[in-house]
Amino acid sequence: MEKYQNTKLTPQERAEDIVSKMTLEEKVSQLRYDAFEIERLGLPAYNWWNESLHGVARAGTATMFPQAIGLAATFDENLIGNVGDICATEARAKYNASKKQGDCGIYKGLTMWSPNINIFRDPRWGRGQETYGECPYLTSRLGVRFAKGLQGDQPVLKVAACAKHYAGHSGPENVRHQFDAEINDKDLNETYLPAFEALVKEAQVESVMGAYNRLNHEPACASDYLMDKLKAWGFDGHFISDCWAIRDFHTHHKITSTPAESAALALNMGCDLNCGNTYQHLLEALEAGLVSEEVVTASAERLMRTRIRLGMLDETCAFDDIGYEQVSSEAHKAYSLECAQKSMVLLKNNGLLPLDQNKIDKIAVIGPNASSIEALRGNYYGTADEYWTFLDGIRNTFKGRIYYSEGSHLFSALLQPLAQPGDGYSEAVTAAQHSDVVILCVGLDATIEGEEGDTGNAFAAGDKVNLYLPKSQRKLVEQILALNKPTVIVNASGSAMNVLGDQADAIIQTWYPGQMGGKALADILFGTVSPSGKLPVTFYESTELLPDFEDYSMKNRTYRYVENNVLYPFGYGLTYSDVICKDLKFDLDSKTASFTVVNQGNYDTDEVVQLYIRCENSEHEVRNHKLCGFKRIHIKQDEVLELEIQISEKAFEVVNDAGVSFVDGNLFTLYVGVNQPDDLSEKLTGRKCSACQIEL
Amino acid sequence: MEKYQNTKLTPQERAEDIVSKMTLEEKVSQLRYDAFEIERLGLPAYNWWNESLHGVARAGTATMFPQAIGLAATFDENLIGNVGDICATEARAKYNASKKQGDCGIYKGLTMWSPNINIFRDPRWGRGQETYGECPYLTSRLGVRFAKGLQGDQPVLKVAACAKHYAGHSGPENVRHQFDAEINDKDLNETYLPAFEALVKEAQVESVMGAYNRLNHEPACASDYLMDKLKAWGFDGHFISDCWAIRDFHTHHKITSTPAESAALALNMGCDLNCGNTYQHLLEALEAGLVSEEVVTASAERLMRTRIRLGMLDETCAFDDIGYEQVSSEAHKAYSLECAQKSMVLLKNNGLLPLDQNKIDKIAVIGPNASSIEALRGNYYGTADEYWTFLDGIRNTFKGRIYYSEGSHLFSALLQPLAQPGDGYSEAVTAAQHSDVVILCVGLDATIEGEEGDTGNAFAAGDKVNLYLPKSQRKLVEQILALNKPTVIVNASGSAMNVLGDQADAIIQTWYPGQMGGKALADILFGTVSPSGKLPVTFYESTELLPDFEDYSMKNRTYRYVENNVLYPFGYGLTYSDVICKDLKFDLDSKTASFTVVNQGNYDTDEVVQLYIRCENSEHEVRNHKLCGFKRIHIKQDEVLELEIQISEKAFEVVNDAGVSFVDGNLFTLYVGVNQPDDLSEKLTGRKCSACQIEL
Repeated sequence: MEKYQNTKLTPQERAEDIVSKMTLEEKVSQLRYDAFEIERLGLPAYNWWNESLHGVARAGTATMFPQAIGLAATFDENLIGNVGDICATEARAKYNASKKQGDCGIYKGLTMWSPNINIFRDPRWGRGQETYGECPYLTSRLGVRFAKGLQGDQPVLKVAACAKHYAGHSGPENVRHQFDAEINDKDLNETYLPAFEALVKEAQVESVMGAYNRLNHEPACASDYLMDKLKAWGFDGHFISDCWAIRDFHTHHKITSTPAESAALALNMGCDLNCGNTYQHLLEALEAGLVSEEVVTASAERLMRTRIRLGMLDETCAFDDIGYEQVSSEAHKAYSLECAQKSMVLLKNNGLLPLDQNKIDKIAVIGPNASSIEALRGNYYGTADEYWTFLDGIRNTFKGRIYYSEGSHLFSALLQPLAQPGDGYSEAVTAAQHSDVVILCVGLDATIEGEEGDTGNAFAAGDKVNLYLPKSQRKLVEQILALNKPTVIVNASGSAMNVLGDQADAIIQTWYPGQMGGKALADILFGTVSPSGKLPVTFYESTELLPDFEDYSMKNRTYRYVENNVLYPFGYGLTYSDVICKDLKFDLDSKTASFTVVNQGNYDTDEVVQLYIRCENSEHEVRNHKLCGFKRIHIKQDEVLELEIQISEKAFEVVNDAGVSFVDGNLFTLYVGVNQPDDLSEKLTGRKCSACQIEL
Repeated sequence: MEKYQNTKLTPQERAEDIVSKMTLEEKVSQLRYDAFEIERLGLPAYNWWNESLHGVARAGTATMFPQAIGLAATFDENLIGNVGDICATEARAKYNASKKQGDCGIYKGLTMWSPNINIFRDPRWGRGQETYGECPYLTSRLGVRFAKGLQGDQPVLKVAACAKHYAGHSGPENVRHQFDAEINDKDLNETYLPAFEALVKEAQVESVMGAYNRLNHEPACASDYLMDKLKAWGFDGHFISDCWAIRDFHTHHKITSTPAESAALALNMGCDLNCGNTYQHLLEALEAGLVSEEVVTASAERLMRTRIRLGMLDETCAFDDIGYEQVSSEAHKAYSLECAQKSMVLLKNNGLLPLDQNKIDKIAVIGPNASSIEALRGNYYGTADEYWTFLDGIRNTFKGRIYYSEGSHLFSALLQPLAQPGDGYSEAVTAAQHSDVVILCVGLDATIEGEEGDTGNAFAAGDKVNLYLPKSQRKLVEQILALNKPTVIVNASGSAMNVLGDQADAIIQTWYPGQMGGKALADILFGTVSPSGKLPVTFYESTELLPDFEDYSMKNRTYRYVENNVLYPFGYGLTYSDVICKDLKFDLDSKTASFTVVNQGNYDTDEVVQLYIRCENSEHEVRNHKLCGFKRIHIKQDEVLELEIQISEKAFEVVNDAGVSFVDGNLFTLYVGVNQPDDLSEKLTGRKCSACQIEL
C-alpha cells in the first residue's frame, strides 16, 4: 500500500505523499478544473466543477428547491441545513452512479461550487437571486448551515462546499470582468466579509472561490488583502478562481500582459485551482521563472487534500452506499414543497386571502408566469422529474372553473410575432371578467434576471434596469387592476420589485420557488398553510433614490443603512394570523433574550421571531439596528410560547473606519418581533416590536 | 336599412350592394388579409388570418388536439368532424369575446386557414405533420368532415374553412418559394387534387389557399390550370394566397418583374385575398392598366360574401351566444384526450404491453421527449391551460418508483454547454439499470420538424434529412437497448421514422398528441384503453430507396405505388386484442360490402376496418390496391359484428395519363381487414384480409 492510500495518516500527509510522486507536469495538470488522470498513481481524471445552489444543478435529474433567495426568505437555519444535506445526498448518489458508468464529466463530481454568500447590495443585480439576501448576519447563519449540510459531520466530507464569490462581488454583471469594486474598510468588514469569515471559521468550508472583479485595485483571485484574511481566519481548504477569471487579468483588468503572467500571479497569490484555461500556461510561466515548483506543489497538495477528505483516494468510503433511489425521491420532493411553502412572502392582504373555495366559482389565472416552468427555476438549476406551475397548483386545488390567459409575453410587446403589441390583453381582460377572483402571475425568470453570459435579453446582462415589471407586464397589470376584480398579484422574481400593486387586494412574492412551487402557492392561496416567509432584502420604491449601481458604499443601501425609499422592509412578511412578541428581557450573563410569543389571530401558523440590536452610544454604530438572532417557530391559534434566544458576542460589536470590530459603546437597545422594529413595518403590520435596554 | 344589411337577400346580392358603395381605394383595401375599416359603411376592420389546424392556434388559450397527422391516424370521420366543430365553437367564443374588447387583431377572426389537405408525398417533408397523410381517399374523407365541422350546418357559417395549399405542395421547405413542382396529369388527378375537389364539392369549403410553389411552371396562386379546376368543381368561396406567396412571383419565381405586376397577375387569375403586402401595389397596377376595376370589384364581392355568410354584417347572429366558458372547457379537453388515445399507433408489441402495475416496481422514463411540452404540440398550436407530458401521464398512473432521465438533447450532442458530447447517457443507463421497465421517449418536435422560417436547426428548413432519429438520440437508443431491459420506445414525430427499434419490446408512435398526450400514453401503456391508431402514411426503412425529395412523381411513393422499402405499412397498427374480418361479400346494386368482424383476442378494443380495392383488368390501374372505405368500431372481447360499408362509384375508377377518371376494367378485387391486404401487414399481424372478386 502506498502511503497516500493509508487512511490512518492525515489528509495532509497523504496529499504530500501522492504529490511527491508526481512529475512537475503532472502536478500542473492537477491545478485545472478538469484535472487529468494519472494512471500510474491510480488517480482518475476529475472534473472539479459541480453546482448545487438549490439542488444539484446541471447534472440531470435532481430535486429542485426554491432558489437561494427563497431559501433565505424562510429564515430557517435547520431547513437550509437539511437542503444542503439533501443536495449532498443526491450529489453522492449521482457520483456513485456516474463512477460506475465511467463518467467523470463536468457536474458529476463532489466539489460543489455553492453557496453564493455575496451580499445582495443592490436590487438590480441579476445574480442576487443566488444569495441569502442583504444582511451579513442572516447570510452568515444560513451560509454556515448550508455549507455544513453539504459537508456533513463525518470524518469524510459528504461533498465539499465553496464560499463564493470572494469578495465584493454584486454587479453590475455587464462589467464584471473589468470592474474594480472600491470598498472602504468599514463596509468591507462590516458587510461584505463576515459571511466568508463565518463559513471558514464555523463551517470549515473546504473551498473559497475568488470573484471576477478587482477589490480595491487587486483582482479578487489574486489579492493580498483577501488571502491574508483567509489565512487569519485559519482557512484550511483550497482556493478556486471563478471561471475564466484569471484570463480577465490580462484581457480585461489589464494588470498583466500575458496568460503566463496571469497564471503565475494567481498561483503565487494562492489560487490553487483554475476554472478556465489559463493554467495551461503554467509550464511556460515555470520556464520563465515567474512561478516556482514549490508553489505548484503546495497548490497540488491542497487540492489532493480535498480529494482525500472526500474519500476519493480510499478503497471504499462511508458514502458509497448512497443509492440512486435517493435522487429526486418522494421525500426530497416533499421537502422541496415545504421549503417553497415557507419561502413565499405575503406582502399585502386586505382579507381576500386565504380564498374560500365555497365562495368562488371561477378563477382567472393570468400572466406570463402562470404556466411557466422557467418561473420556478431561477438560475443554476437541475432537471426536476415533476414540475408544478402556478396554474398546475391552482388547477389541482381549486374545484371550480379556471380561465387561464397568458396575457402578455414576459418582456416582449407581442405574444405572436405577426400581431400588434398587446395582443394578449383582451383575452386576459375577458378571463378576468368571467371570474370571481383573479390570480395575476407576473415577474421575471432567469432568462431576463441572471448572470452575464446566460442572458440575451432586452435588459442586457441579466441585471434589472429598474424595479418595475417589464413594460409588457406593467400594462397587463394596469388593465387587470382597472377592472376592480378581487385580485392577487403573484410575483416571481429573485429580487426586490415594485409591481405597482396599490389596487391589488393581495400580493405574494414567490421568488423562484422550485419544482413544487405551484403546489406551494395553491396551499397558501387556499389556506392549507399560512404564508410565513420574510423578506431577506429590502424592497425599495424605485431605483431613483438608490445610490449608483457601481457604488459599493453601503450608504442608503440595505435595511441597516437605508434612509428612505422603502416599499416593504427587510424581515417583513404577513401570515394569516396575528402573532406578537412581548415582555422582552435580556440576561447579561448568558447573553440570552427571553420573551413571550402570542398567536392572537385565527390561524395556526409558522412565524419568524427576529431580534435586532443597536448600540446607542458608539460613534461607529450605523444608522439603523441590525439582526442578531432569529428563530422560525410554529404557533397554534391562541398559543402562548415562552422563548429564549442566545445572542452572540459579535452582536455588541461595531466596526470602525479601519475595519476593526470591537465593543465600543455600552448601551444597547434590543428588539424582538416578527419583523424589523422600524416605523414602516409597524405601520404595515399594526404591531410594535417589544424592546429592552441593555447596559454592559 | 341598407340593402347589404338585409338578411332576406342572398349573400351575393348583399355583397354586391356593399361593394357598390365602396370607392376603388376602399375595394382595394378589402383585398388585404388585414382589411381596413370602412366606418361610413359600418364595416369594421377585419383580419382574415386565423388558424385551427388542431385547435384554435396562436390566439391564446384553446383546447389543443393531436396534430393533424395524429387525427388522421384515428381513421375516424366522426371524430375529426367533432374536432372541427369544437374548433369552430372555441373560435366563435373567442371572436365574440375579442369583439367585446374591441380587439380585431390577427388570429381573432372567423376565417380559419385550415385544414391542410396536401398529400404527404415524402416522409422528409416537415409540414407533412399538418396533413391527413398520404392517401387521397383518407385525406378527402377526413378533410371534408373537418371542414364541415368548422363550417357547421346552419344558414350562417360557424367559421370558414380553407383548403390549402392548392396544389402540389409537399416540400422541400427550403426551396418552396422558388420551387416548380412538375407533376404529370395522372398523378395530379389521381393523388394531388382529389381532396381539393372533395372539399369544394362535398364540404362547400369557403376558401382555398394557393401554394407557394409553381405547379408545372405556373405559380399556384395564379394558375390557369388550378383556377379552371376550381370553376369546374363549382367553387363558390374566395381564394387566398399563401402568406407572401405573391411576392415570390417577382422575388423568387421571377415570373414577374415588379410587385405591381405580381399583384395584377394574381388578382387577374382569381386570387381574391393577399396574405402579405403585395396588394398594396394594386392601385399602382390599376393606374398602369395591369388590372381592371371590375376584377377588383369581383374579388371584393367574393370576400364580402364570405363575411356576410359568417353573419358579420348582421345585427345579431346565431353564434353570438357562444360563451367564453366554451374555451378550453373540461368537455373539450376530455375530447382531446379521447382523440389522443385513438391516434397513437402501436407498431410493435412482443407482449410487454400493456404493463401490469402489480408486476412492476420501478420504471425508467428516459429521453428528450419524456418531459417535453413541445413534443405534445406539433406546429400551428394554441396555448393549452393544461399539459400532460409523457412523464406526467406515467407518474399520474404508475404508483411505483419512476426514474426519469432526459438522456440526451433532442438533437445537440450536449445537454450542458460545457460538457462533453453524450453527457446524459450515463444517467440514462443508470436509470434503466435501476428499473424493471424502460419507457424511452424519443422523436422530434416542431423545433426541428416543421415549416421553413419556423425553424433554425441542424436539420435546416424543418425537413428531415433522413428517417432516423437525430444522432444524439440514436446513440441513446443504442445504449439503452443494449441493456436488454424490457423497453418500450415511444416515438413522437409528425412523420414516418425508423427508430431502429429491432431490440425494443414495443414501439408506440404517438405523433404530436396534443395537450392530454401524456395521459393518453399512460392509458395505453397500462391498458386502460387498447391502442387503435393506424398509420396514415407508409413508414419506410430508409430514404435511400426513396425517389428524390424534389421528384413529384408517385412512383415508389405511398402505399399505392410503393415497390419496396416498407418498414410499417399504411393502415397498420396493433391493438391489445386480435380482431379479424371475414366473409366479405359485395352487393353490386347497392355498392355495399358486408362482412363479419370477430374480436378473438382478450381485450375490448377499438378497431379500424378498412376496405381496399384494385381493378384487375385496366392498364391504367396503379401498382397496388387503394383504400375505398373505412370505419372505426368498438368491439368487445368475443364480440361478433356484422358490418356493411357502402363504396363510392369513384372506387371503381382509374385515372388515365391525361388525368381523366373513368371506369375502365370490370374485374375488381375487394379486401377487408383491420389493415392493408399487403404481405408485410399480413406478416406483421399474422392475419389475412378477407377478399372477394367483383365483376361489373
